[in-house]
Amino acid sequence: MGIRKNPCQSVAAWFFDGEAVGRVKGLYYDGALSFRADLPVPGRRPGESLVAVTLAGICATDIEIARGYMVFRGVPGHEFVGRVAESDRAETVGRRVVGEINCPCGDCDLCRGGRGNHCPTRTILGIAGRDGAFAEYLVLPDENLRRVPDGMGDREAVFTEPLAAACRAVEHAAARPGERVAVLGDGRLGLLAAMAFAASGVPATVIGRSVRKLALARERGIRAMTLEEAGKGFGADVVVEATGCRDGLAHALSLTRPQGRIVMKTTIAGRHEVNLAPLVVDEIALIGSRCGPFDRALALLASGAVDLRGLVSGEFPIERGLEAMEEARAPGALKVLLACGR
Amino acid sequence: MGIRKNPCQSVAAWFFDGEAVGRVKGLYYDGALSFRADLPVPGRRPGESLVAVTLAGICATDIEIARGYMVFRGVPGHEFVGRVAESDRAETVGRRVVGEINCPCGDCDLCRGGRGNHCPTRTILGIAGRDGAFAEYLVLPDENLRRVPDGMGDREAVFTEPLAAACRAVEHAAARPGERVAVLGDGRLGLLAAMAFAASGVPATVIGRSVRKLALARERGIRAMTLEEAGKGFGADVVVEATGCRDGLAHALSLTRPQGRIVMKTTIAGRHEVNLAPLVVDEIALIGSRCGPFDRALALLASGAVDLRGLVSGEFPIERGLEAMEEARAPGALKVLLACGR
Repeated sequence: MGIRKNPCQSVAAWFFDGEAVGRVKGLYYDGALSFRADLPVPGRRPGESLVAVTLAGICATDIEIARGYMVFRGVPGHEFVGRVAESDRAETVGRRVVGEINCPCGDCDLCRGGRGNHCPTRTILGIAGRDGAFAEYLVLPDENLRRVPDGMGDREAVFTEPLAAACRAVEHAAARPGERVAVLGDGRLGLLAAMAFAASGVPATVIGRSVRKLALARERGIRAMTLEEAGKGFGADVVVEATGCRDGLAHALSLTRPQGRIVMKTTIAGRHEVNLAPLVVDEIALIGSRCGPFDRALALLASGAVDLRGLVSGEFPIERGLEAMEEARAPGALKVLLACGR
Repeated sequence: MGIRKNPCQSVAAWFFDGEAVGRVKGLYYDGALSFRADLPVPGRRPGESLVAVTLAGICATDIEIARGYMVFRGVPGHEFVGRVAESDRAETVGRRVVGEINCPCGDCDLCRGGRGNHCPTRTILGIAGRDGAFAEYLVLPDENLRRVPDGMGDREAVFTEPLAAACRAVEHAAARPGERVAVLGDGRLGLLAAMAFAASGVPATVIGRSVRKLALARERGIRAMTLEEAGKGFGADVVVEATGCRDGLAHALSLTRPQGRIVMKTTIAGRHEVNLAPLVVDEIALIGSRCGPFDRALALLASGAVDLRGLVSGEFPIERGLEAMEEARAPGALKVLLACGR
């Protein structure tokens, strides 16, 4: 994937050139992850806004990036809520916002065909070519920002990006009423996906390993069981694979009926072993799924259909960001938040 | 997969029990592949026909089976044309037939739901629980047999099964006019799939490695090129992966546009390494595809839309079956046939 290099937005370039040394706190990855207190304020181009990050959420992708996935260098993080600090559109300054993470070129065949999220030269907040949300400030194009409704708390709004991804998995699943739907994985994303399925009118069963997390699902009226309880004969019409684990796909294949569908959310960096013969023999469709619709996620959050109680397992100030990353990696962790506001 | 044990049809049981020793020639796999001249005549139950095999075709699956795939024991082979030798339906005796390879139970949820090809207790000719076509005789349920039109030669009719599989890949591709379609792999199945696409009205490009095989495609008016010529920016809407190789899926992913589709035909026994991150990031759908519609394949053959000239690279009598298997395994081989008739 070719990623556009944009030195204006590279905190790294500024920092190491020694030309501009700021006083922005944030996490920085350059082969190792560190906390820094003297990152520069990220540069803003016309049509972009500077956003003061209030809260950021740690996602499995951030953990992969800190292991070298995407060969990213810079400030990681792509789930956030913040306030516009600077913008060409003066009326937006001070507004609470969340932001779509893909920044497409707008000019290529994919962009013109409505597939900007797959633009080959796009930058991606905290993932490719653009510094991210684990800092006091970030920069995004104005059109990426979405206003947070007044009644919605920051600790809800920060779930917009992962809930949008969960909504995308529901779209890809295309489950019809009466179909047997499973969400494999009881982590942050799995529980959000199960709630998004419930809100869509087609309930899903969460299949996981953690007694505590399965209980969180049941408290929300969602059917939940272990892989052993589901057994080999589960025969799902569609499984959303949201384990984040290397063996997730093999388990998903064993849970899916012939000619069923698997929506794959887990991105594992690098090559790993898998036996795809069952996919061919059983004529299963495996559908990759990534970023989702922010408007749908904000509407779901505003409607109260998504119950976030118990989904945050830690909140750390940005200065303790490395500790927060450790916490997010720990078995049993759910969403870990970083408080980035001054 | 649970496969119904049916001792009536197990040549192995008959053979080793020493109860019935026949004079049927065939290939036999029991951990190693051998030619045998004293296999018993396979047992026929009510509703089944005994078929004298005229010609059988060697497929990549047979080669995998001879390496231990499916843990099959017995006579391999599932592509054939033959003549009915014994049947409850006397009027069918002497008819030239081909045969669908899946023998479902007819009673389970999948069978009742029209998915008999995925019945969990089905037997599969020469693949699971049922002796196959690399012998002078085989047995199949009457309803599996399809009459070969009088004007069609045996060397055409023997392509019915692989052409049906190619038609199934075309069904799974669901390509719309104007879409960019690639068939990755210039082997037996790849060339058949490209011809099936052409007949469907949506032409495909064959991408392969063999100058000679790519020339066979071009002789049929099919666009053909090497992987290097296709390059990274090929951007197919849909790729049929028919390489039979472990690295086929990785190449297919590199040829497919974001949100495109890959129809997976290659079954590789056991676990192998693959990087599925591009599938998730690019939201690609990977669709397993297996056995196809015999009626469609017979109609295509009868119409003359599929040109089989040059697709047979060898024909051996059954006594030289081991040599034929070697030939089919060789780089550059196309379809190798076994002449099984007395």
